[in-house]
Amino acid sequence: MHLFYQPALSPTDTSGTLTDDDARHATRTLRLGPGEAIAVTNGRGNRFLSVITKADNKQCAFRVETVDTVAPRPFSVRICVAPTKNLDRVEWFVEKAVELGIERISFFFGQHSERRVLKLERIEKIAVAAMKQSLQAWLPQLDEAVPLAQLLKQPADGQRFIAHLPEDGQAPHLFSAAGPAQQYIVLIGPEGDFSAQEVQQAIDAGFQLVTLGPNRLRTETAALSACQSLNLLNVVNLVNL
Amino acid sequence: MHLFYQPALSPTDTSGTLTDDDARHATRTLRLGPGEAIAVTNGRGNRFLSVITKADNKQCAFRVETVDTVAPRPFSVRICVAPTKNLDRVEWFVEKAVELGIERISFFFGQHSERRVLKLERIEKIAVAAMKQSLQAWLPQLDEAVPLAQLLKQPADGQRFIAHLPEDGQAPHLFSAAGPAQQYIVLIGPEGDFSAQEVQQAIDAGFQLVTLGPNRLRTETAALSACQSLNLLNVVNLVNL
Repeated sequence: MHLFYQPALSPTDTSGTLTDDDARHATRTLRLGPGEAIAVTNGRGNRFLSVITKADNKQCAFRVETVDTVAPRPFSVRICVAPTKNLDRVEWFVEKAVELGIERISFFFGQHSERRVLKLERIEKIAVAAMKQSLQAWLPQLDEAVPLAQLLKQPADGQRFIAHLPEDGQAPHLFSAAGPAQQYIVLIGPEGDFSAQEVQQAIDAGFQLVTLGPNRLRTETAALSACQSLNLLNVVNLVNL
Repeated sequence: MHLFYQPALSPTDTSGTLTDDDARHATRTLRLGPGEAIAVTNGRGNRFLSVITKADNKQCAFRVETVDTVAPRPFSVRICVAPTKNLDRVEWFVEKAVELGIERISFFFGQHSERRVLKLERIEKIAVAAMKQSLQAWLPQLDEAVPLAQLLKQPADGQRFIAHLPEDGQAPHLFSAAGPAQQYIVLIGPEGDFSAQEVQQAIDAGFQLVTLGPNRLRTETAALSACQSLNLLNVVNLVNL
């Protein structure tokens, strides 16, 4: 069954209409019509098993038959990443992280960031598409890019990590440093890495230095690797869901 | 220091020349000249710390100062994947898997594969670029695409897995099913998944059914996730290298 996204739906709703984009996809591309079953999520944990009641080029209305509630994962992964110079790379990270499982993606500009502007609109669309593609009911939170210093001042619970290899080369792997079933925040630097000052500011703000393995990784690869390390650390919980 | 790739180098060589592509990159893009230090790998575990002796637009010659030998990892990951309809996706997988660490990538055509042709030339270039980018000294082996039945007949040591969720939904996660420090082979199906017959053929050939988590993953995401699960399973060994 196809999964659509309608953020306006509440768990008590008994009917609804798809967004323009989804209506077009349902009626024109998939050629779905009245009487056919669809699933719709509001991106906040609810899945509405529904039946199409009206379908034309402009609108697709449905009647809700049953509502499922999907619990949030018993841990949460937040990756804070400096946008890459080439936007494809950060967009790719968002698609893959959403497919594999992530709760929140925050962007920041570091001292060595080449990119100084990031529009979220396209990235939000990619996140929605990846949520639907992977049949999930939770849309991760996406945060507008802010300077790193501002990000470090935000209050946040959980285990905090910064992916950076210190000059003496001594730091544990994220996978060894993190404990299971936590709220995690990981900072991933830009192509030019963090400055020494930024690393110190992060340490002062309670972030622990970690590595992501022996190879030098691109920004987006490091970000996805961090996300996947934390997902796998909790894999026993995940499989038991 | 920049890392270049010259497959013709042997550990006993005391001098060499870069390939045309690398020579152009070294002399034109990076503007390196005589006396400057470079590193060169042959993709077979040797790293040649060298000094440029001659550099013009067409040729870049170097003198080898010291040769390092990098041991292979104490485990090996081979991912066998059906090429995606959209070539970008399989190319992306190759880039990321090489960055994160992989020994061998094999391609196959399944009954539900939409793509029936795969040229390795471009994929080999991507693998070489990712090896250099991530500062590694081993180039993974890439195998030409063959029909799945032919792949299943190849003799191979190690633990064998097929990423497929059976109808009853019962299969362990790859991360739980695999043991550390092994040779691993994982089969990842095309967009249309494996046929029931193919799954049975794989089981008959000694492959174990595993899942990669609760979300439905695209082919290239599943392939990378499998690779990274096996890498992380061995992370303690990796960090100690």
